[in-house]
Amino acid sequence: MSTVESLNWRYATKKMNGKKVDEKIIDEILEAARLAPTSSGLQPYQVILITNEELKKKIQAVANGQSQIADCSHLLVFAAWDNYTEARIKNRFSQTRSERGLPDSAMADYENMLLNIYTPRESHINFEHAARQAYIGFGIALLAAAELQVDATPMEGFDNAALDELLGLDKLGLKSVTLLPVGYRDAENDWLVNMKKVREAKQDFVIEMN
Amino acid sequence: MSTVESLNWRYATKKMNGKKVDEKIIDEILEAARLAPTSSGLQPYQVILITNEELKKKIQAVANGQSQIADCSHLLVFAAWDNYTEARIKNRFSQTRSERGLPDSAMADYENMLLNIYTPRESHINFEHAARQAYIGFGIALLAAAELQVDATPMEGFDNAALDELLGLDKLGLKSVTLLPVGYRDAENDWLVNMKKVREAKQDFVIEMN
Repeated sequence: MSTVESLNWRYATKKMNGKKVDEKIIDEILEAARLAPTSSGLQPYQVILITNEELKKKIQAVANGQSQIADCSHLLVFAAWDNYTEARIKNRFSQTRSERGLPDSAMADYENMLLNIYTPRESHINFEHAARQAYIGFGIALLAAAELQVDATPMEGFDNAALDELLGLDKLGLKSVTLLPVGYRDAENDWLVNMKKVREAKQDFVIEMN
Repeated sequence: MSTVESLNWRYATKKMNGKKVDEKIIDEILEAARLAPTSSGLQPYQVILITNEELKKKIQAVANGQSQIADCSHLLVFAAWDNYTEARIKNRFSQTRSERGLPDSAMADYENMLLNIYTPRESHINFEHAARQAYIGFGIALLAAAELQVDATPMEGFDNAALDELLGLDKLGLKSVTLLPVGYRDAENDWLVNMKKVREAKQDFVIEMN
């Protein structure tokens, strides 16, 4: 299917049937998120992968009881860096130089520019920037799932602080941003499956300025 | 190509060759952005499409002179709502009810819940939320371009306030968030085209918690 066909096929699945998704498909969705671009290539987020039924139920309890969290096959939690730090930025540049076989002096001006922008800035502003990057990977992961004909429900409606505590994300320097339960639709019991997808009309969504 | 193959094919093109991209391809990229999911389906952003050479040069001037803005075929500007207002939220629900043939009373509890969350909240917090949604569409648009074998450079490095003024976005209740020049790579003159794509290793990017 084309991208547009995949996007028309998918919908925010409200009821999943509990069927397991093949690990190879999950790997491909995670790989899509991993390959997603981010600002300056800093990749300021990680994905937490959860299949444990007990843990999923605990997460459901801090996410307004949304049933997909329990009924999905794999739950992905997108969690962004709580801050851009000197160590984190230097680590990324060091990895890039190493993988590209560049000398230690390479990209020094760019690295210093980023250090000068990010490290003096308040952590909540840096977190907001990191969270935006996580949304790129989040969008790409959900499209990747659709292209593999697997359902996924993009979700924000949860108690972020409670989830961070439950998963111990503060110790990892992360804050939860979004959830993506991945699984298969229970078409017979999902009120949304046959509803028309509603989007702003193209002539309103796109503004041509020329 | 699979999603992962497309993501490996793409890169943040640094030099474009000025060749025009077919309008049908641009339409498909815009359609992908239009179909992208957003929180509660509110679609709190728009895409501005620019091909005028003079305007592109003016934008380049407030975007650190990045050459792709001038050398691309079509420039997409993703701009988010500056705020969630009562009128905007009600308008979306009204459209959804109308397109789904639902009575005026449908979804009232959900609509009121959103009105109670968003309308009393400070506009900069609402804007941050809207901006995150724009990043979903931004990620999906750049993947759509890659799947169509068209280059696109995700960009943040510009003077947002200057661009907003240049495009008169405040009058539209919008604030610019990202740029996406779309075009074709000038492979012979692009320093990045043959560099290894660097990403965090899968075992570091994905945290399994079970």
